[in-house]
Amino acid sequence: MESADEIIPVGVMLSGRGSNFEALLRKQCDGYFQRARIVCVVSDNPDARGLVTAKANGIPAYAIAPHAHPGKAAYENAVLQILLQHGVSLVVLAGYMRIVGRVLLDHFPGRILNIHPSLLPSFPGLHAQRQAIEHGVRFSGCTVHFVDAGMDTGPIIGQRVVPVLPDDTEDTLSERILAQEHELYAECLKRVTEEPYEIRGRTVCFGPQRRGDRA
Amino acid sequence: MESADEIIPVGVMLSGRGSNFEALLRKQCDGYFQRARIVCVVSDNPDARGLVTAKANGIPAYAIAPHAHPGKAAYENAVLQILLQHGVSLVVLAGYMRIVGRVLLDHFPGRILNIHPSLLPSFPGLHAQRQAIEHGVRFSGCTVHFVDAGMDTGPIIGQRVVPVLPDDTEDTLSERILAQEHELYAECLKRVTEEPYEIRGRTVCFGPQRRGDRA
Repeated sequence: MESADEIIPVGVMLSGRGSNFEALLRKQCDGYFQRARIVCVVSDNPDARGLVTAKANGIPAYAIAPHAHPGKAAYENAVLQILLQHGVSLVVLAGYMRIVGRVLLDHFPGRILNIHPSLLPSFPGLHAQRQAIEHGVRFSGCTVHFVDAGMDTGPIIGQRVVPVLPDDTEDTLSERILAQEHELYAECLKRVTEEPYEIRGRTVCFGPQRRGDRA
Repeated sequence: MESADEIIPVGVMLSGRGSNFEALLRKQCDGYFQRARIVCVVSDNPDARGLVTAKANGIPAYAIAPHAHPGKAAYENAVLQILLQHGVSLVVLAGYMRIVGRVLLDHFPGRILNIHPSLLPSFPGLHAQRQAIEHGVRFSGCTVHFVDAGMDTGPIIGQRVVPVLPDDTEDTLSERILAQEHELYAECLKRVTEEPYEIRGRTVCFGPQRRGDRA
């Protein structure tokens, strides 16, 4: 949590439709966030529909092509310059299909959020919903977590449970989870920008911090 | 599912208190199971309290010491002889602290059930509740599955979700999960002995079998 009354500029990174970005934007328009404000959108894909959505809502939007840069660090530095121009202090990944590298991780330590369509640590990586169906689990869900150098491994901010039904396909399960993603991501962004929290080990503990109250 | 009206003799294997065995026994006494009948208990630990519980309820109970046998196969053959004496056709593991080996797996293919205190595939192996707390997940639970040669990897029969609360310790979480284990294990034993099912890939599908109804 920042000091009181401060607005926290949020940069969104996405690669496609950005349905979670759309959901966050709706919440922002509804006045749900006291402090978080989406100030720019950056995509690695110039055809991402999320860029169109951003512009239609008056939010500066940029496509940065990784292949136009000599390496991941150079690409991320280009992204970083845009985020810094807009004063971003918190980054939200909304369907950003790349592993975040050192440049962004070092500049935003513990300040990058991601959402993943499973109950992590089950089913990290691509096609989490298909993995869940093929594994035969009865419950899956979604997870919002801080990003670290691993693949969907960072400290967990929040989770929601979604049942896997006997006749589910990857599409029907994805749709059911997505509805929960939209709620969960907004809730978690609100919490990390409005509530005090502390990361102990890899557990994100919200609320006034007490010492020695946990074995 | 066996042919109608047939009683299915169940052998329980345990290593300690056997609280899941106690719970199944209570359900059996209440008439919850139409077909499953616990007919014997085998423990690798002569001091297991589950043996006392069994005898107090008139159920034949045996301790088989692994170290008194020249190897795992010999030990499991000794266990197998007891199970066969009692006509066991389904084995239920209730806190049995060993990996089931080839002798039992080969004799009871898809006929050994286990319960694990997490939402598998998260947190297999020992201390699943502690793993969940240390990982910082918001939800854990329990899983009943068919046993295969892996560690908590077999096809999932049923799961229940349990929230992980901010002040949970390993003990408080274990207790909350255990209450659900007792319900889930009985429910799953009832289903696999009373309902038709089919294992497709690694998904356990209950109900009358339909072909081609799933993408």
